[in-house]
Amino acid sequence: MYQIMNNFETVLQSINWNTEPINLYKPIDYTLKSGGKRLRPMLVQLACQLFEKKTESAENAAAAIEIFHNFTLLHDDIMDNSPTRRNRETVHKKWNANTAILSGDAMMIKSYEFLAKIPQKYWGEVFPVFTKTALEVCEGQQYDMDFETAKEVSLTQYFEMIRLKTAALLACSLKIGAILADAPKKDADLLYDFGIALGIAFQLKDDYLDAFGDEKTLGKRIGGDILCKKKTFLLLSAIEKSEDDINNLLQITIGSKFITDEKKISVITNIFKKIDMPKICETEIEKYCQKAINCLEKIEVKNEKKTDLKDLVEKLQVRIN
Amino acid sequence: MYQIMNNFETVLQSINWNTEPINLYKPIDYTLKSGGKRLRPMLVQLACQLFEKKTESAENAAAAIEIFHNFTLLHDDIMDNSPTRRNRETVHKKWNANTAILSGDAMMIKSYEFLAKIPQKYWGEVFPVFTKTALEVCEGQQYDMDFETAKEVSLTQYFEMIRLKTAALLACSLKIGAILADAPKKDADLLYDFGIALGIAFQLKDDYLDAFGDEKTLGKRIGGDILCKKKTFLLLSAIEKSEDDINNLLQITIGSKFITDEKKISVITNIFKKIDMPKICETEIEKYCQKAINCLEKIEVKNEKKTDLKDLVEKLQVRIN
Repeated sequence: MYQIMNNFETVLQSINWNTEPINLYKPIDYTLKSGGKRLRPMLVQLACQLFEKKTESAENAAAAIEIFHNFTLLHDDIMDNSPTRRNRETVHKKWNANTAILSGDAMMIKSYEFLAKIPQKYWGEVFPVFTKTALEVCEGQQYDMDFETAKEVSLTQYFEMIRLKTAALLACSLKIGAILADAPKKDADLLYDFGIALGIAFQLKDDYLDAFGDEKTLGKRIGGDILCKKKTFLLLSAIEKSEDDINNLLQITIGSKFITDEKKISVITNIFKKIDMPKICETEIEKYCQKAINCLEKIEVKNEKKTDLKDLVEKLQVRIN
Repeated sequence: MYQIMNNFETVLQSINWNTEPINLYKPIDYTLKSGGKRLRPMLVQLACQLFEKKTESAENAAAAIEIFHNFTLLHDDIMDNSPTRRNRETVHKKWNANTAILSGDAMMIKSYEFLAKIPQKYWGEVFPVFTKTALEVCEGQQYDMDFETAKEVSLTQYFEMIRLKTAALLACSLKIGAILADAPKKDADLLYDFGIALGIAFQLKDDYLDAFGDEKTLGKRIGGDILCKKKTFLLLSAIEKSEDDINNLLQITIGSKFITDEKKISVITNIFKKIDMPKICETEIEKYCQKAINCLEKIEVKNEKKTDLKDLVEKLQVRIN
C-alpha cells in the first residue's frame, strides 16, 4: 500500500506549477503541497490492485481526483470563511478571495486535463462517472449550506447530503480504479456501492469523534460541530429520537449565547450520552461498515486481494473504542 | 444564420434547470436566460456550415461553450464586484457570493457534461482544445487582475492578456465547429487563427468604443474604462507613444481624485485625440481584421460559403466610422 502511494505522491509533486501567471498557479502548488490523507488516490489504486492490474495508468486518474478534491476544499474554505486547513493558512486568507476563486477554477479544469491522460479507450466509461460525481459534490455542498439556515432537517436529508458531498467521490475513485483495471461492470458497480457505504461510515465517524473523540489522538479540539450548530448525525438523531423536554433543552442550549463554550459542549454531550447517542452512532457506523463488507464479499476476486480494503473498513470501527 | 441560432437557443432554453437543490440550479437558469450575443455558439455553427455539415451535432458543443463562457462571467462579476450584467442584477448581488461561486462551479462541470454529448469519435480532438482554452481563459483573467495593480504593462503583455482572456475562446469555438464538420486539420487550424485575430480586433474595438463610441448606439456611458483606470490599448499605447510631458499629464489626470468624472473623461479623450489615438487604434483593428481575412482566404472552400464569417469581420471595421 505504501509503495503505490509513494509513486502517486511522486507524480503529484512532480507537476510543475511554477509557470506564468504565478498568481494563478502558486496557490495551486501551495494547496497540493499541504499534505492531506490522499485517501481518494489510494482508493483508485487499491481498486486497481484488486484486479491484479499494474497501477501506473491509474496514477493520472488518481491525480485528477485529488486535484478535484482539493479544488472543492479551496472553494469550500472561502464559503465557510475558514482561516486554516491542515495547520496552514487557507488560500483566501494567505492571498485573497479572488485568487482563491480563480485558482480553484483552474484546478477544476486541470483535473479534467489529468483525467484525459488515461488511455483514450477508457474515456467513454470514466468521463461520465467523473462528471456526474463532480456535480453531486456541488449539490452536496449546496445542501450542506442550505441546512445551516433550515429550520428542520430530517435524517433522510442528512444522509442524502453526506452521500453527495463526501461518499460519492470515494465511490467514484474506486469505480474509476476498477474501470482502469478492466474489471467486470458488476464488480466496478459493487466497488462503487462499497465506496458509498464507506464514505457514509467515514462521515458518521467524523461526527462521532467531534463529540466523543480524544483531543490528543485527534489533534484538534472537541465540540467544534456543537459550537457552530452543525446539523450532524448526532444532533439530528437526538432531536428526532428524544422526548419533548430533552429536545427543548437541546435546542435552547445549542442556540444560547449566554453560556461559555465549554459549558455548551459539556451540556450537549451529556444529553447525547444520556439518550444513548454514542451507542446509536456506533451501531449506525457498524451498519454501513457491514454494508461495505457485503459489497466487497460479492466481488469475485481472491479473498487475500481484499485485505487492504477490508482493513480500511475495520480501522473505521476500531477507532471508536 | 438566424435559423441555426434559433435552433441553438431552443437547445439551450430547453435544458431543465428546475431541479434540486434549487439554490444551486436556479442561479444557472437565471444566468443562461439573461440573453447575451451568443457569439461563441454562432461561431461553432458557422464553422460547421463552412464545411457543408449539418449543424445539429454541433449544438451540444455550442451549448457547452456558452455555458462555460457564462460561468466565467459569473465568477468574473464576483471578482470585479459588478452589480449588473445585461441590465440585470448579477448573481452575487441577487443571491450572494457563495451562491455565485458554487453555481459557477456547477456550470463549469455542466459544460464538460454537454461537451461529452458530441459523438465519441470526436472526443480525442475536441476535449484537449476545450481544456487548454479553458485554462487560458483563467490565465487571461489572472493577468487582467494583475494589471490592475501593476506599475508598468507593455503592449506585448496587453495583447497576450486579451489573446488569452477573450480571443482564445472565440478561436476554440471555431476550431471545435471545424472538427465536428470533419474539416481538414489545416483548415481547422486556420479557423483557430482567424478566431484569435477576430477576438483581438473585437477587444480593440471595445476599447475604442469606450472612449470614442456613441452613447446612444452603444447603450451605455462612455469613459467607463478611463474612470476605473483600466489599462486598455488606448491608454497603454498612448503612454508608450507620447512625449514625457503628455505622458505625465495622462498619468496625473487618470489617477486624480480632485476632478469630476466628466472632466477626467474629456481631458483624457482629448489627449488621445491629440496624439492621434483614434487613427492608431483604427489601424490596429484594421491590421487584425486583415489577418483574419488572410486566414479565411487560405481555407479551401467555395468563396460564397465564407460570406457570414467575412461579414463578422467587416461589421467590426464598419462600426468605427
